[in-house]
Amino acid sequence: MSLDPKRTIAELKELRALTADENGAQRLAWTDTWLKAREWFASKLKHLPVEQHYDAAGNGWVTLQGDSDKALLLGGHLDSVPNGGWLDGALDEMAGLEVLRRFASEFNGRPPLTIRLVDWADEEGARFGRSLLGSSAFAGTHSIEADRKRTDKDGITLEAALRRCGVEIDRFPEAEREQKNAAAYLELHIEQGPVLENLDLPLGVVLGTKGVERHAITFHGQEAHSGSTPMKVRRDALAAAAKLALEIRSIAGKHPDAVCTMGSVKTLPGIVTAVVGRCETTLDQRDLDAAVLAGMHREAKDASERFAAEEKCSVEWSRIWNIEPIAFDPALIERCEQAILETAGKVHKLPSGPLHDAAEVSRAGIPTVMMFVQSLGGISHNKIEDTREEHLELAVHALDRLASKTVEWIQSTR
Amino acid sequence: MSLDPKRTIAELKELRALTADENGAQRLAWTDTWLKAREWFASKLKHLPVEQHYDAAGNGWVTLQGDSDKALLLGGHLDSVPNGGWLDGALDEMAGLEVLRRFASEFNGRPPLTIRLVDWADEEGARFGRSLLGSSAFAGTHSIEADRKRTDKDGITLEAALRRCGVEIDRFPEAEREQKNAAAYLELHIEQGPVLENLDLPLGVVLGTKGVERHAITFHGQEAHSGSTPMKVRRDALAAAAKLALEIRSIAGKHPDAVCTMGSVKTLPGIVTAVVGRCETTLDQRDLDAAVLAGMHREAKDASERFAAEEKCSVEWSRIWNIEPIAFDPALIERCEQAILETAGKVHKLPSGPLHDAAEVSRAGIPTVMMFVQSLGGISHNKIEDTREEHLELAVHALDRLASKTVEWIQSTR
Repeated sequence: MSLDPKRTIAELKELRALTADENGAQRLAWTDTWLKAREWFASKLKHLPVEQHYDAAGNGWVTLQGDSDKALLLGGHLDSVPNGGWLDGALDEMAGLEVLRRFASEFNGRPPLTIRLVDWADEEGARFGRSLLGSSAFAGTHSIEADRKRTDKDGITLEAALRRCGVEIDRFPEAEREQKNAAAYLELHIEQGPVLENLDLPLGVVLGTKGVERHAITFHGQEAHSGSTPMKVRRDALAAAAKLALEIRSIAGKHPDAVCTMGSVKTLPGIVTAVVGRCETTLDQRDLDAAVLAGMHREAKDASERFAAEEKCSVEWSRIWNIEPIAFDPALIERCEQAILETAGKVHKLPSGPLHDAAEVSRAGIPTVMMFVQSLGGISHNKIEDTREEHLELAVHALDRLASKTVEWIQSTR
Repeated sequence: MSLDPKRTIAELKELRALTADENGAQRLAWTDTWLKAREWFASKLKHLPVEQHYDAAGNGWVTLQGDSDKALLLGGHLDSVPNGGWLDGALDEMAGLEVLRRFASEFNGRPPLTIRLVDWADEEGARFGRSLLGSSAFAGTHSIEADRKRTDKDGITLEAALRRCGVEIDRFPEAEREQKNAAAYLELHIEQGPVLENLDLPLGVVLGTKGVERHAITFHGQEAHSGSTPMKVRRDALAAAAKLALEIRSIAGKHPDAVCTMGSVKTLPGIVTAVVGRCETTLDQRDLDAAVLAGMHREAKDASERFAAEEKCSVEWSRIWNIEPIAFDPALIERCEQAILETAGKVHKLPSGPLHDAAEVSRAGIPTVMMFVQSLGGISHNKIEDTREEHLELAVHALDRLASKTVEWIQSTR
């Protein structure tokens, strides 16, 4: 039985039929629909010569034992955001399964290296606001105390939701055992952005995941009557925020792949007849280069203070979250580039703005690379998320080639 | 009994003690606290030779009959916003009462002209979002069908709230009868802005009330992932709105008294990890000159369309409300200026940004003028709203002088 990318597409559609409604995919981690997706996935393993178990963080592991214990890891995630798409996470997992099947078939159930397929638990963090939950436990970068008491919109704690699925948050560190013998990690994902589509390319090599600086920035001015307060005596917190909203574009514009986003603006009191007294904003800055990221953060801070002074306001910054840039393995990047060239004839290298489980695996010191397949319209986390089927097929072929090249590389170097 | 401005201050404090709590004045129109304020006010009339009644819109009228039926009207409003100040509206009413007392005393209960004091119902519109309710009924500019079904935060309709206080909205037109014999209207009010304080002046003549153009402006871009969407392909609705938030200041800055305010900005989806797909803003523009106001509206509209195009967004405008500028009577402006000069030695002329019942009276064709007294910090609609007591006393004196001058003017010209 050789590689069958059409089966991957058929299985993704089957999963969609099982776990999506008219608003999109509903495989929110730790819910019944997610558990149903995992059951369905397990049913696909029935006639394969594999061992399956869940680790202490709820990550699902499928192991095709090889002659060597050294393992090539392939991964994805079956969880989705609410009203999500059919490909984000699930493509990675189902393409990985197809590659595992090919190895099982080609080597009569005993490949030279061990092949392991992981279904990361709660990549999206959509319910509790904590993404990469399972892969951070695997990598030993978990934050149990900070996460335990997180609540969903119904007030249920993360700890309780996990317990309901048989996962004890205090046992997260045991998930690190799965790192044993891991020699490389590969992940295919939809791009979730417009770069490959704009270049008219099906596939790209991911250089790494960008570092992120994420802050809440609040400008304090003076609420005042819109009718009776002359323009020149105003202390308009919105004006200072508006200047920053525009300035961050210049700051990002100095670097080819950097992005800066003001995603939320809240005005208080926020009524038509009052000058804004307080303006609460958020800033998300990303780049693959740690020095660039730090520089952008400093520039935005300086600019915000300058604008606050110009508008007779004050400004305060509060860090929401940050992560350093994570560069993928150069040898695997090279092999990924070759695999794509051999499959599609052309290739592009790009950083990933969104984070992925691959970043956590890389933090654990395991050589890692990701491959992107084109997203139509750059849209994800939405029921209209889509990729052309011919591109999905190319992606499964390219991932398979990359897996073979990676096995050779592991054998030759380790 | 001569004019006693200290009594006015004492009475304002008495009213505050009766109708304010730790958060400020609570004389919201059509509530029990407002009715209590009106009862208290009626008790102040006991030994005065006056007739008192409420008109069909709930405006309270106190009439000191004179030798002539021609009437000088003085007015104010006892209602306040929730958590309001002690002066907004109540100063006007209590100062008017003091002037009426002086006329009654000086002319042994029979002045040459009739003096009428009106307590307008629901000037603030704080409960149903419809300000100047009583004075618009008086002026015949009411909007009964649009207002009848307005609801407060508990779902009670305006119609029902008025009925509870004995007022039938369908009878509003009968309030126009009170226009009969009205020869002039005077109103004292706190400035609610910082102009007089910045000029170190206690009193000012109000030239009229500014016209207002009030719009909801929504920019439509494309929601996109903050990490995966390159800067140059974004369609950031916030960027277009930020440009407009800054541009309206240049638009207003071309005219000495014009103001433009963006008071509310809402970002959708409004999350830290998404480029803003939709940005809902409000714009409030005011000037005393109708042509300037129309020009500013046009300029803002053109700018918004230019910014939308620059950001690959679209924009739509929806008028929330508008009113034309209302200029007060030139002869009364002149007399108000003289009265202030004689009282305080110096004067300033300024337009009113906020609307007042005087605007509605003026629309009814009755010669009208307003006088402003300095507001500390330009703050109103807040429990910290305040004015120095020496300025309050000067204001009562100046209003009294203006009333005498106005009586002379009416006698000489009509």
